[in-house]
Amino acid sequence: MVKPRANIKDVASRAGVHPSTVSRVLNPATRSMVSESLAQKIIQISGEMGYQRNPLASGLRTKKTYTVGIVLPNISNPVFPSIVRSVEHTLDAQGYTAILADTGSKRRNEKDVVDNMKARQVDGLLIAAARRKDPIVDECIDQGIPLVLVNRTVDKHNVAAVINDDELGIQLALEHLTALGHERIAYVGGPQNTSTGYVRYRTFLKTAKKLGLDVDRDHITNASDYTEPAGQAALESIMAHSKNFTAVLTANDLLALGCYDAMRARKLDCPQDISVTGFNDMPYVDRFAPPLTTLHIPLDEIGVQAALLLLERMAEPEAPAKQLRLEPRLVVRGSTAAPKGPEIN
Amino acid sequence: MVKPRANIKDVASRAGVHPSTVSRVLNPATRSMVSESLAQKIIQISGEMGYQRNPLASGLRTKKTYTVGIVLPNISNPVFPSIVRSVEHTLDAQGYTAILADTGSKRRNEKDVVDNMKARQVDGLLIAAARRKDPIVDECIDQGIPLVLVNRTVDKHNVAAVINDDELGIQLALEHLTALGHERIAYVGGPQNTSTGYVRYRTFLKTAKKLGLDVDRDHITNASDYTEPAGQAALESIMAHSKNFTAVLTANDLLALGCYDAMRARKLDCPQDISVTGFNDMPYVDRFAPPLTTLHIPLDEIGVQAALLLLERMAEPEAPAKQLRLEPRLVVRGSTAAPKGPEIN
Repeated sequence: MVKPRANIKDVASRAGVHPSTVSRVLNPATRSMVSESLAQKIIQISGEMGYQRNPLASGLRTKKTYTVGIVLPNISNPVFPSIVRSVEHTLDAQGYTAILADTGSKRRNEKDVVDNMKARQVDGLLIAAARRKDPIVDECIDQGIPLVLVNRTVDKHNVAAVINDDELGIQLALEHLTALGHERIAYVGGPQNTSTGYVRYRTFLKTAKKLGLDVDRDHITNASDYTEPAGQAALESIMAHSKNFTAVLTANDLLALGCYDAMRARKLDCPQDISVTGFNDMPYVDRFAPPLTTLHIPLDEIGVQAALLLLERMAEPEAPAKQLRLEPRLVVRGSTAAPKGPEIN
Repeated sequence: MVKPRANIKDVASRAGVHPSTVSRVLNPATRSMVSESLAQKIIQISGEMGYQRNPLASGLRTKKTYTVGIVLPNISNPVFPSIVRSVEHTLDAQGYTAILADTGSKRRNEKDVVDNMKARQVDGLLIAAARRKDPIVDECIDQGIPLVLVNRTVDKHNVAAVINDDELGIQLALEHLTALGHERIAYVGGPQNTSTGYVRYRTFLKTAKKLGLDVDRDHITNASDYTEPAGQAALESIMAHSKNFTAVLTANDLLALGCYDAMRARKLDCPQDISVTGFNDMPYVDRFAPPLTTLHIPLDEIGVQAALLLLERMAEPEAPAKQLRLEPRLVVRGSTAAPKGPEIN
C-alpha cells in the first residue's frame, strides 16, 4: 500500500554514499558496520525523503525475511505476554519482527500454524507449545529451520531450548510443605505429553519418596491441560475419593487457581483446611485471595535468552544445540501454612 | 530457509488443474472460489509434494502481503491477550497473519513501530495505542493505509474504530456508588491525551453534577499512565490532601489495583473504609482481594469486530469510516459496599 517517495539511489546520492551503505544503515542488523554519525545522517535523509527499506524485496534477494515466528500454546496464560515482550524487544534490536500465533484454539492445530510461518519464510522459530514427541519440531529440524524451544522441551536431544529447572522447582515446593509439617500431600500435575508435566510429576514422586512421605496414588491426578477448569476437575476427582490430605502441590499456577475453585465449591479454606502451591509466579498471583505460594520463574529473562539463542542459531544453524536451564525460586505467600488438626499438638 | 520441494506447476499438473486454481486454493482468502472437494484434493497433493505458497513472492506481484500490524500500548495489560487472540483468529480465517508490536517500552516509540510495519508493507493496521492527537494515525490515513483503532480513538472524525461506550460505563459506576449511599467520591483517571482518559474524566464531572454530588477538586487526579504504580501514586496524592471521601471511582482496573496498594500502605480496608471501582473487567480481577467491582467490556467481541472492520476497510479503503461503540456492563463484586460512619444511622 505504501508508495515509497524516493528510492535507495536517491537517498544515497543526497548522502554522498554508495546505495549499499544506505542499505546497511537501514537494516538494524547491519547498522553497526557504519559509523554512528554517518548512520544518523543517512537515517535523517531517508526520513526527509520518505524512503523506506522494503524487507520483502530484500527477503527475496537475500533469502532472509528478518521475520521470526513465535508459537504459543495459549496466549491467555499470563506468563506469555512478558515472555513475548522481551523476545520481541530483543529481536527488534537486531532488525527482526515477530509473527505470533497461538495454538490454543480448537480451530486449527500447531501444524497449520507452523506451515503458515514456513510459507512466510520465517528465518527462525520460537516454540513454547512443544510436546515431548513433537513431529512438527522434528520436521522443522529436518528442514534446517533454526529453532529454539521455550519453557517446554522435547524428549530428543540436541534441540536448542530455554527451560526452567523443573526438578529443582518441585523439590523446593515439596520441601516447603514438609517443613511446615504436611505429611499427606496431594499432587495436581500437568499433561504428561509435555516435558513440564512429565518432569514435575516424576520429580514429585521421587522427592516424596526421598523425604519418606507416604504417597497415596488416589491423591495424584495429572490434569489434561494447564487451565483453571482442568485444575478444578483434577482436585475434585481427588476429593471424590478421599480428603485425607492437608496440602496440594500443583504443577502450574492456573491449576492452583482451579484448586482454589474446587475448594471454594466445598467451602474449604485455603490455607486453613488445605495449603496450595503453584508454579510460574504469573502476574497478579500475589493479589489473589489468598496470595499464591509458588515458584518464581524469570519471565523476562526467559524471553531475552530465548531470543539471543535463536539469533545465535540463525547465525550458525549447524552449531550444536544449547539448552539453557533457569533456576526457579520459591516465593512463600498466604496459600501455605502449617496443617491444622491432630498433627499439631 | 525452507526449500520448496515442488513448484506450483508440479502440483497443478498432478491435480489436473491450472496453476491459478492451486494458487486460489492455497490462499485462504480465495479458497471459497473453488469447490470444497477440489480444494481438498489440491491441499492433499500440495502436502504430499511438499509445496507451499510463497506469500513474499505473491506479495510483490499482487501488492498484498496478507499481513496486518497490531500496535499495543502495553502487552502486559491483561486485556490485550484476549483481544489479540480474537483478532488473530478472525484474520487467520481470511489468510492474514498478524505482526505484533508493543510501544510500552522506553526503547522505541510508536513511530518506529509503525514505520517498521509500513516497511513490511502490512495491508492494514490495528492500533490500540492511539492518542487523541496522533500524528502517526494521521500519517497512515494520509498514506491510505487501511486502519482501525481499538479501545482508544482520536479526536478527529472519520477514523474507523471499535471502542467502548466510556460515558455509559462511568455513569453506571457512579450511579452504583451513589445508590450504595456514597456522597463524597474521589476519582482516579487516566492520561488526558487518550480518548478513554479524557471521556471518562469529563463524564465523571458531568454525571457527578447531574447527580447533585459535591465534587471536591482535591479528590480528583488523572494518572500519567494506565498502570498500578500510577494509580497508587494518584490515590496517595489525593490522600495527602484529604481523606474525606468514602469511595474511589477509577478509569481502569490497573489504576484500581494501584488504589488497593495505596490503601494497604495506609492500613485502610476496601470496602470497609473506602469502596473502589475499576474499568475493563480484565482477567482475574474476580479473584483479587477483594474481588473488583468494575465495568465489563467484551474483549473477544472487541477483537472480532475490530478484525472484521479492518477486513472491510482493506476491501474498500475509500468507504466512509465506521465507529463501533460496545456497551460495558457493571459487575458488582466485593470492592464496593455502603459507606460506614455517620452517614449510616
